[in-house]
Amino acid sequence: MSRLERLLTGEPRVATAGIDLLAEGVEAQGAAVTRTEWHPPLEGTEDALAAITAAVDLRAANEEAVGRLVGTHPHWTGMAVAREVMEMGERTFLHAGPPLQWDDCSGPMRGALVGAMLYEGLAATPEEAIALGPEIELSPCHHHRAVGPMAGVISPSMPVSVIEDAAGDGVSYATLNEGLGKVLRYGAFAPEVIERLKWIETVLGPVLADVLARGGPIDLRSIIGQALQMGDDGHNRNRAATSLLLRQLAPPLIGGEGPHRDEVFRFVEGNDHFMLNLVMAAGKIGVDAASGVPGSSMVTAMARNGTEFGIRLSGTGDAWFTAPAPVVDGLYLGAFTAEDANADIGDSAITETVGLGGFAMAASPAIVGFVGGTASGAVQRTLAMYEITLAEHPDYKVPILESRGTPTGIDAARVVRTGVLPVINTGIAGKEPGVGMVGAGIVEAPVACFTQAVQALAEEVARA
Amino acid sequence: MSRLERLLTGEPRVATAGIDLLAEGVEAQGAAVTRTEWHPPLEGTEDALAAITAAVDLRAANEEAVGRLVGTHPHWTGMAVAREVMEMGERTFLHAGPPLQWDDCSGPMRGALVGAMLYEGLAATPEEAIALGPEIELSPCHHHRAVGPMAGVISPSMPVSVIEDAAGDGVSYATLNEGLGKVLRYGAFAPEVIERLKWIETVLGPVLADVLARGGPIDLRSIIGQALQMGDDGHNRNRAATSLLLRQLAPPLIGGEGPHRDEVFRFVEGNDHFMLNLVMAAGKIGVDAASGVPGSSMVTAMARNGTEFGIRLSGTGDAWFTAPAPVVDGLYLGAFTAEDANADIGDSAITETVGLGGFAMAASPAIVGFVGGTASGAVQRTLAMYEITLAEHPDYKVPILESRGTPTGIDAARVVRTGVLPVINTGIAGKEPGVGMVGAGIVEAPVACFTQAVQALAEEVARA
Repeated sequence: MSRLERLLTGEPRVATAGIDLLAEGVEAQGAAVTRTEWHPPLEGTEDALAAITAAVDLRAANEEAVGRLVGTHPHWTGMAVAREVMEMGERTFLHAGPPLQWDDCSGPMRGALVGAMLYEGLAATPEEAIALGPEIELSPCHHHRAVGPMAGVISPSMPVSVIEDAAGDGVSYATLNEGLGKVLRYGAFAPEVIERLKWIETVLGPVLADVLARGGPIDLRSIIGQALQMGDDGHNRNRAATSLLLRQLAPPLIGGEGPHRDEVFRFVEGNDHFMLNLVMAAGKIGVDAASGVPGSSMVTAMARNGTEFGIRLSGTGDAWFTAPAPVVDGLYLGAFTAEDANADIGDSAITETVGLGGFAMAASPAIVGFVGGTASGAVQRTLAMYEITLAEHPDYKVPILESRGTPTGIDAARVVRTGVLPVINTGIAGKEPGVGMVGAGIVEAPVACFTQAVQALAEEVARA
Repeated sequence: MSRLERLLTGEPRVATAGIDLLAEGVEAQGAAVTRTEWHPPLEGTEDALAAITAAVDLRAANEEAVGRLVGTHPHWTGMAVAREVMEMGERTFLHAGPPLQWDDCSGPMRGALVGAMLYEGLAATPEEAIALGPEIELSPCHHHRAVGPMAGVISPSMPVSVIEDAAGDGVSYATLNEGLGKVLRYGAFAPEVIERLKWIETVLGPVLADVLARGGPIDLRSIIGQALQMGDDGHNRNRAATSLLLRQLAPPLIGGEGPHRDEVFRFVEGNDHFMLNLVMAAGKIGVDAASGVPGSSMVTAMARNGTEFGIRLSGTGDAWFTAPAPVVDGLYLGAFTAEDANADIGDSAITETVGLGGFAMAASPAIVGFVGGTASGAVQRTLAMYEITLAEHPDYKVPILESRGTPTGIDAARVVRTGVLPVINTGIAGKEPGVGMVGAGIVEAPVACFTQAVQALAEEVARA
């Protein structure tokens, strides 16, 4: 029987898109209808999309970009001091998110910068630091091959993990995660915070450098892949990855000599988010490798500085496309409410940029106890992200989805065409410096970033 | 509107049970039907069920039993030598499963007993050991507060982990997991196996004893609960639990003195199943606490000796109800096939007996790569087990099922009434001694065990 014959003789299955009147009409006649969630392209982008696809082979460009992204193989190879590897002056302070001026800093960012100035000895008191604020050089971590969670401040004396790509010559950097509680990344600058930073500089960093030298490089891609099989999402839930890391750090510590080995292990072991900075740096290697593919609409950064949310595309290189950072709708801890929350902050959306975090929620149903929602909702989040991504990750698999690779390589063109926005799991920082984490939740990347980006890409390809 | 009025005016929803003719008749009239999977009670059990429920308050008895089961709080507190704590003669060899005679031993069981005799020095060669076989005393681990995976052989000189109930005075024992490859529990008895057992006796056991003495008891219930959030099932997938255990073992090893610390850590770290024996022993504490509740039809053991599969019920105390051990239908490794498989073997079905393993598969979708099937099938397995269990575990939660507690406390009365049999995830041993693991899969406990058990319970309550 031909398809047409089957169509006429079989049970009709009706799907509708657009105005509901069509669906209602069919239902009134007793037939079942599936309504598809269709949206017209985001306002102001149709011409840009047309211009891009007319000028370049968008599919090929994006295939190239996502191929480079998932082709990297990051390893944690050692430690270094920030000033020695990251092209920083003595008054340079790196921060999370797109470029930022001192006067525009939110509470936690300002607090973190104050703390960093105290740590560096540029100021003796918080008041002196605040007065010095407008004179320091601020630069995004992203501009220095680095990423930082929350305020993400990196100052010249800080030790940084060195991450290298075994499949290429890329390198990235990230600080060592300070732990939970009163910490610099949430804007705290009390003496205990500065002391901990000093301990990290003088004890934690050197001991870990020795561990890596004796134990060998740590394969981050392998750990992340295994961790997704163990309920992590790579952004807000890193217990499995941190556990797997500890299994590798322990033997050199056990077999080593010298003081502080027990102290160092306990410090890392006490922080289930220790691996976060390393997962982020692993992602940074990937996006840097994928940057600069002519015509590609793949997203190579999503980052927030607590004031603005910025994205970058592969085909527009280093350009940032920014919008006000949203306030996260989430589950608040204790007596905190949305009133206490700072706007979205941190480079940790690098995880969603590389197929983890909110994109991998289906692998991490336990996370809903932290960010809110239901387990089935978490699965839906991941499924929705397949609409706007270019590939299924070859190594980051989701067990509950029959080992389907995570949705990887956000396509800004698909975002504007469908109206489906990238979803990010995130912690929520208190807006007062030093309050710390007030909750966690889910936030969508702002529409405006994507409309600007696609328009800019259209102009870029027209110039070429 | 009354319920009757709603029934007459609303859309009818039809559910059927039993012969399909009913459902077909309704469907032919254009209405939707849900067929329920209903089975009559297992043959020969209706009278027994009636007798039991007439004689005792079965609900109350089972509530008592499962309450005791989930009320235990096992901790790994130290090490001991088997002969000192487990009431064994010098020629006593404990084994997995129900009671067994030498002549009835399958390949792996016989091989493991040979190996144990060589280890104990009771024989100098395998031939001598085989000749001695009929003269040694064989006794189930279960009769000595112990459990063992696969052949599960425990001999007098072996070090055993001591597990104590913080919520009661129960204690249980298990050997230290030998690791993967050529090992005693799969029936291997080559010199390397004996040497490893000697190393376990002289190095691993003592070092772990020291670690526990300095680091304090390890909360097994806590680890297991966390591990289920991390993709473990507690039977065939123990990577998360082993990782969490290693996090606790490392600090005393790092801070300790003396030789072998690095060697010991690497040994445990190299075996993702190390935690299995401890999870099993934790379960043994629970079932022993729950044993002996008059009239209770709750299962307190499911265990296999490679020849027979046996169960026990709380209300019938120490009595075993046995049937031939089934051959597991599973995924075979390499070139192995079902031809190479031994019948089901091991005490590890203690995990299913306490709400883990096959009952917790929904928490462990990654396991299907090992035992076969699909992730959605794994979820269905767990859902089916709620039909035949008494409670949802207060601490062992399944994230994908919105943190529902695992189905815990198998009710033999429900099993025979519904025909739904307990499902067990298991490794498959090669039938030739020493071959090792040939695959893994899913097996159902034999019907005959449950019909016998329920009939025996009926006789027991009649006597009382």
